[in-house]
Amino acid sequence: MRERIIDLLKGATSVLSGEELSLSLGVSRTAVWKCIGELRAQGYDIQAASRHGYRLVSCPDLLTPSEIQFGLRTKILGRACVHFDSIASTMNEAFRLAMEGASEGTIVVAETQTKGRGRLGRSWSSPKSKGIYCSIILRPGGAPAGVAPLTLLTAVAVSEAVERVSSVRPLIKWPNDLLVKDKKLCGILTEMRAETDRIEFVIIGIGLNVNSTPRQLVPEAVSLKQVLGHSVSRVILLQEVLRAIESRYIDVQKNGFGATFVAWRERSATIGRKVRFQEKGGMMEGVAVDLDSDGGLLVKLASGKIIKKISGDILL
Amino acid sequence: MRERIIDLLKGATSVLSGEELSLSLGVSRTAVWKCIGELRAQGYDIQAASRHGYRLVSCPDLLTPSEIQFGLRTKILGRACVHFDSIASTMNEAFRLAMEGASEGTIVVAETQTKGRGRLGRSWSSPKSKGIYCSIILRPGGAPAGVAPLTLLTAVAVSEAVERVSSVRPLIKWPNDLLVKDKKLCGILTEMRAETDRIEFVIIGIGLNVNSTPRQLVPEAVSLKQVLGHSVSRVILLQEVLRAIESRYIDVQKNGFGATFVAWRERSATIGRKVRFQEKGGMMEGVAVDLDSDGGLLVKLASGKIIKKISGDILL
Repeated sequence: MRERIIDLLKGATSVLSGEELSLSLGVSRTAVWKCIGELRAQGYDIQAASRHGYRLVSCPDLLTPSEIQFGLRTKILGRACVHFDSIASTMNEAFRLAMEGASEGTIVVAETQTKGRGRLGRSWSSPKSKGIYCSIILRPGGAPAGVAPLTLLTAVAVSEAVERVSSVRPLIKWPNDLLVKDKKLCGILTEMRAETDRIEFVIIGIGLNVNSTPRQLVPEAVSLKQVLGHSVSRVILLQEVLRAIESRYIDVQKNGFGATFVAWRERSATIGRKVRFQEKGGMMEGVAVDLDSDGGLLVKLASGKIIKKISGDILL
Repeated sequence: MRERIIDLLKGATSVLSGEELSLSLGVSRTAVWKCIGELRAQGYDIQAASRHGYRLVSCPDLLTPSEIQFGLRTKILGRACVHFDSIASTMNEAFRLAMEGASEGTIVVAETQTKGRGRLGRSWSSPKSKGIYCSIILRPGGAPAGVAPLTLLTAVAVSEAVERVSSVRPLIKWPNDLLVKDKKLCGILTEMRAETDRIEFVIIGIGLNVNSTPRQLVPEAVSLKQVLGHSVSRVILLQEVLRAIESRYIDVQKNGFGATFVAWRERSATIGRKVRFQEKGGMMEGVAVDLDSDGGLLVKLASGKIIKKISGDILL
């Protein structure tokens, strides 16, 4: 009911009386009044003038379904949305929901995670209400090899969304970290359930440092607020992220990955730079020369030989 | 407690008195007596001579943990075992257990499945106590591309196990159906949870028609009983299947897939035969010439061109 009251207040051109709200919702005025109290406790600034009614002055920067979906310009992504104040991991919850049949585009967001995960089982720090911690269910079909390009797509889309909202242009470190001044702004984690030759579903996880203070982050990380010097609305940023991913996703399904890979190269922090990475035989060095059509990184070694790296980490 | 009574009776050289059993188990003689009654109802033939005690005459062909684990010659596979009289799908249950951290080698078996699944979302018929419906949790690590060879390994191992127990030598239809006289004896379904470049776990599902009657199977399928003319112990066959998979799995981890691929080719129903398959451009025809190092099937077309098929079905 809280969600519906907020939607009604947001949609109202002037004040809404308690009676109007109680009629619209089919509940008593006392129930409305109680709910308004709960919303205020959540951070919603709701003015009440006696004999007139209620007016929404401002909303807290919470990633609740009503906040995310109000003004959301997508057809699929975020149309179903599950919000947690705190959860172990949005990845695990999204995976569980997908196994139960949750539809494509369903997202799981949390204000904080107690066991946030990064790639390869690493932990991901999730200071409360300071970042975007969001997992998205996609059902693209196709073979498991198709997941790597989807991960690159997400990196491109998040970089585009951040740039649109803040004018900061994060670069992409292969395969899918977003960097600002060589510090990590965003990590992307992709998981799937698949048969040998068919993806059942993909979960794309985004951990984006938005308003965190330096003390809340590891030294190698940076938040948008640190870069800009002021806070950013997480709601607006997440809406833009969802829109950008959906737009790229639909384009890729129609036209393939060509345009997205071009965009990836333009935003790359990796191509043209010296890279080092671990191989079975020890550390190797070379220059990253291009992205391959399957999402692998082509690296030219000192010997002139070009090898393709398809997994693992690189050091710039 | 039923499992422990069976183990004690199996291990006893002569009869075991109710008192001995009650002391060993730390329960009352009445509890022992009640439990013996339940075991008899389950199909265990337990003789009782007054003043002497209990003796196990015969066991039912049930795939309970005590039956599977008594005499099981494996180190990992089946050492943890979950048995259901009836379940929707052993695949889903094993997947759920693996998500909760179940150890490598854990197996889920059921007497029947109400929603048994085959590849690509097809259904799998599971007549009660007539077949082996078993899902195995493996944690091989590595990249998702490593799952296809694991599937081939399973096909080889099950074929070897069937041959050892029954002298029937099933052939493998690429990628992983077992055929006897061109009818399907066994289907193998492999699923995984994975990041873009790292497998978290693999679930290998085996559906093996053991003692089913023709009426219980679709016309394209066949059971071992139909081929042999007599029933086969499901317990012994499953024990041999687990042993064969584990043996191949350990070998592959040490020495790679070389020997297993050689065995696959020797047991292949596909190599050297005309095949037809669906491609984007329509049906294609050619001759299957070999298995590629990643588990793909190399097919020589009429034009002389050799293409690699990595997924989907083929018709022989």
